[in-house]
Parts: sequence; structure tokens; C-alpha cells
Amino acid sequence: MTPKKIIIDTDPGIDDAMAIFLALRSPEVEVIGLTTIYGNVYTTLATMNALHLLEVAGRTDIPVAEGSHVTITKGTKLRIADFVHGSDGLGNQNFPPPSGKAIKQSAASLHPGEVTVVALGPLTNLALAIELDPAFAKNVGQIVLLGGAFCVNGNVNPASEANVFGDPEAADIVFTSGADVVAVGINVTHQVVLTDADREKLANSNGKFAQYLCKIMGIYYSYHHDAYSTRGVYLHDPTTVLAAVNPSLMTYTEGVVRVQTVGITRGLTILYNKQKRFEEVTEWSDKPTVKVAVTVDAPAAVKLIMDRLMES
Amino acid sequence: MTPKKIIIDTDPGIDDAMAIFLALRSPEVEVIGLTTIYGNVYTTLATMNALHLLEVAGRTDIPVAEGSHVTITKGTKLRIADFVHGSDGLGNQNFPPPSGKAIKQSAASLHPGEVTVVALGPLTNLALAIELDPAFAKNVGQIVLLGGAFCVNGNVNPASEANVFGDPEAADIVFTSGADVVAVGINVTHQVVLTDADREKLANSNGKFAQYLCKIMGIYYSYHHDAYSTRGVYLHDPTTVLAAVNPSLMTYTEGVVRVQTVGITRGLTILYNKQKRFEEVTEWSDKPTVKVAVTVDAPAAVKLIMDRLMES
Repeated sequence: MTPKKIIIDTDPGIDDAMAIFLALRSPEVEVIGLTTIYGNVYTTLATMNALHLLEVAGRTDIPVAEGSHVTITKGTKLRIADFVHGSDGLGNQNFPPPSGKAIKQSAASLHPGEVTVVALGPLTNLALAIELDPAFAKNVGQIVLLGGAFCVNGNVNPASEANVFGDPEAADIVFTSGADVVAVGINVTHQVVLTDADREKLANSNGKFAQYLCKIMGIYYSYHHDAYSTRGVYLHDPTTVLAAVNPSLMTYTEGVVRVQTVGITRGLTILYNKQKRFEEVTEWSDKPTVKVAVTVDAPAAVKLIMDRLMES
Repeated sequence: MTPKKIIIDTDPGIDDAMAIFLALRSPEVEVIGLTTIYGNVYTTLATMNALHLLEVAGRTDIPVAEGSHVTITKGTKLRIADFVHGSDGLGNQNFPPPSGKAIKQSAASLHPGEVTVVALGPLTNLALAIELDPAFAKNVGQIVLLGGAFCVNGNVNPASEANVFGDPEAADIVFTSGADVVAVGINVTHQVVLTDADREKLANSNGKFAQYLCKIMGIYYSYHHDAYSTRGVYLHDPTTVLAAVNPSLMTYTEGVVRVQTVGITRGLTILYNKQKRFEEVTEWSDKPTVKVAVTVDAPAAVKLIMDRLMES
């Protein structure tokens, strides 16, 4: 089997680092590029971190294209999750700047053709690509995205998950674009936990990636301990990569997803599963459907992630 | 044990009729009044129907107070569910008008003191009572309401349940009032189904109420068959009465509920269960909590409802 070509749209970010390394270690996929976006850090820093992570991995052959610095509706104040990932996005490790540079092409113009895009941050780049090229949604292979809180509270506020909250208008464009979208929400990623014991196992392994990740994960663990009272961290981004690497680890439902863009639930995702016929036409009527992950084989997911990160 | 005094705020409505009869047959509660509201029908007709139902039951001793004809934010177009209940609200049976009249007092001014209010329609009357009297929320015994779609699609559109959609601003006032609120949403009432077979059992019983209800339920059954492809009807209002009659038939969670009042998810209810500490202050922060029904012993609920309606 030839590996699936993927582009990772990313805002590294500690779990982004884990996700990128996981993808590089997964023979099922071939990473043909990284594109960057604000979210865990500002876009400029996301680009620096993407280049840095590829240098750590010895994979400077993979191009990095810089993405949007602003939301699709200009003027929205960015929400940067530096309290989760550190002000450098990588656990406040003060790494030296990367030697490499981003390519000239913009993230949105990187036309993916048959490529799968794995989107780990706010969806601005994908929405811009859809606006730039009306054929994008049809031509892109698949969009596997971390976004939404389906039937659970959000992680920014009770209504909204961070990536969708980061650019709700962009998310609504992507969800209703007609592209082959697989959404992995925090209802699923909150089941995939790297415990304190797992972290120790990573630390005691000889894996280069495991070693690097253990160095940067301190702040990510303290944040989770404080915010969720868990003895472990949620593997949001690696789980989303798994939806591209091994889709059979999850089950999915299909329906229309719309994003609320105003009011107290701005950034909320509502999936309409078509089980009811409504009397009136709704904002969900006649819109294309997407797939939404519902369950995950969490032990198998954690094992696969750990095994690949511990390879030396 | 002395029965719990209850006032039923209602928009009859086929399942309202069932709920009122159930309450009248339940020794655990004493119905001390009905107040009316738009929803399944306009308020004027709701009042006529409430008087009519009490006459059918031979309980003209119970006063009916007419409620608001408009939403709390005036100017909102009312949504009347005549396609579910018939244009007369009672299955298009062309009943003669009631002989009785509503009392002069307005529904909102009926100060319930230690009384439990069972609210089966949009929450305008309760919100007005809260606005009229700052002590209302503290003085009212309990508010048991049918409202919200917690973690499931709504029944007006994918986001919103009909009673909350009917007056979202009023619902948000009630949910955040500090009163002892128990919300029964369609996530629970959709589990309590009166099947076609149950309906036949009612029809073959000698119960006066069962006989009357079977006469009016035709349109309610056809609506459900068409909209949900179910061979049965949801017992929204009777289930909510049960939450007052026998609260142990359900389990509850506690949290802050806010209502979205704008945009495509207007009328959406979001419960914050306090399992996460958010970085930022949210619209749910420092608001009073309410109880929200989570599970119901559906077979026991259906049996209790049927048994009481079949009593002759």
C-alpha cells in the first residue's frame, strides 16, 4: 500500500509536536508539508516551531508554508493558549531558533489535490483555500480536523472548543464546504489520556521523540492537573492524526455541522443527525454532511501513539 | 404525607391535557391552579382549553389565570405548534366552549409562596413573575419545567427545543434566577414513549381520562409518525409532571444553564457541569445552578402515567 499523502496544518503546541512526530513515524502516511496557523501560539512562532520540530526530527526535506496571521473575518482578537503550552508553545524550553525558513507559498495556496489535510488549529487556512478556489472542496482528498465539542462542554467556555472558537466563521465555511470532512472533537480526544505513568514510560524509553516530548510536557501536565483535576493529559492532536493513520480506531456518525458565530455560545458546533424532520426550514437544511467521530478505542490509540514515539 | 401544592403553567396541547389529568389523579400533588401561556396554541385558546379540561375532569373548583400573550421581549413572532396538536390544540375535536372563566388575576402575579410551579410551555409567565417580584425566586417552592435539549438535537431545529425557543430570553431569566429549578429536557422526554399498543390499551380501558385522550390523540400520533418515524408519541408534559409527583423516577445532574438568544442556535440550552476550570471568565461563571434531568426509568414512568389515566 502506498502511504496516504498528508499536509498537517498546525500551531505547535506541545500536542502538535507529538502529533507531527507520530505522523513522521507512521508508515501509513507520508507528510508532504506543514502549514502553520495561530492558536497555541501566534502564526510567526508556529512557523518557527514547525521548522524547529522538523529539524529535531531530521526531516528538513519537508516544506513549511506559513498560514494566516488573522481570522477570516478580520479584526477578531486572537485567543492564544500560551497558558497551556508555554509562551514559546513548546514548554518554555528556550530552544535556539531554527536554521530553516518557510517556503514562499502561502498555506492557503498550497493546493492539496488528492492530499489529506490534517488540521490541528483554527480553520482559517482551509477556509481561505476554499474561498480562493471554488474547486478546492471537491479536489482536496480529505480534511481530518480537530475541532468541536459534540454533546460535551467546550474547553474555552461551556459552549466552545478552542480551535473552532479561534475562528468560528472559518469553521462554518469548512464544515459546510462539501469537502470530505472528518471532525474529531474533544468529546473523543478527552477519552485519549496520556497518564503520569505513561509519561514515565516515555521518559524511560530510548526513543528520541519520546525524550524530546518529555522535556517539553511539564506545563501541559500542570495545566491539565489544574484545569481538569486529571492525572494525565488529553492527546487532542495525536488522536486526530490517528483518524488519518488508522481511521478504524474510531467510529463516526454523519450529519450537518453548523457553527454558531455570535452570542454567548460563539464557537459552538451543532451536529444535526437527520433523525427528525423539522416543520420549518432550518440553517442545517440542504447543507452538505460531514463525518463526526463518536467513539475511540482509547487503549489502542494510546498504545499506538506511545509505541511509535518510543521507537528509537 | 400532605400533598405537594402545584400550579401548572400550560399551553394545552394534547400532552398538556394528559399531564393535567395525570396531576389530578396523583395523590402526591394537589393542583391549586392552572396558568396559561402560548405555545401549542395562542394564550386565549390555552385559557379556553384549560377551562375546558377542568370541566371534563369535573374540577371547576381549580382556578385558571391567564398568562402572557407575548414573549418577554415584545415583538418576537410567536411560534405556535398547531401542526402537532391541531388548530384547536386538542386534536381538532371542535369541543363546545367552556362555561367557566379565568380569574381576574394575571398568571405572573399569582404568587406561589411555597408552591411548586410545573411549567409546560414557554417560560414567559415565570420570567415576568421574577421581574415583578425580586423575592419570587427565593419564595417559590420549586420550578419543575419542560425545557431544553441537553446534548441532543432540538425539536424546532437542530439546536433548540420548542418551549425554550418560544421565549429564549424568558428561559435564560428563569434558569439564572437562583430559584430551585428542575429542568426536564427532550433528552429525557424522548425516552418516555406511549406506543401504538399502549394507546390501544388506553382506548380499551374504562378510564374517563383515557377515553377522552384517545379521542384527541390522533393528530399527535400522525405528527410523531411523520416527523420521527416512531410508532408512538413522546410524553413530554406528563413526564415533567412526574418529576414533581415522583422525582425518584429520574436522575439529575446540577450545573449552570444558559440560553443562547441570538443567531442560528437561538433557544439552545447549554449546561455547564463545572468539570472544567476555564482560563477566562465565562457567561456561566458565578451564576446559580439548576438541576437537569439526565435519566428516567421509562417503563415505570409510562406504567404510572397509564395506570392513573386508566382509573375509572
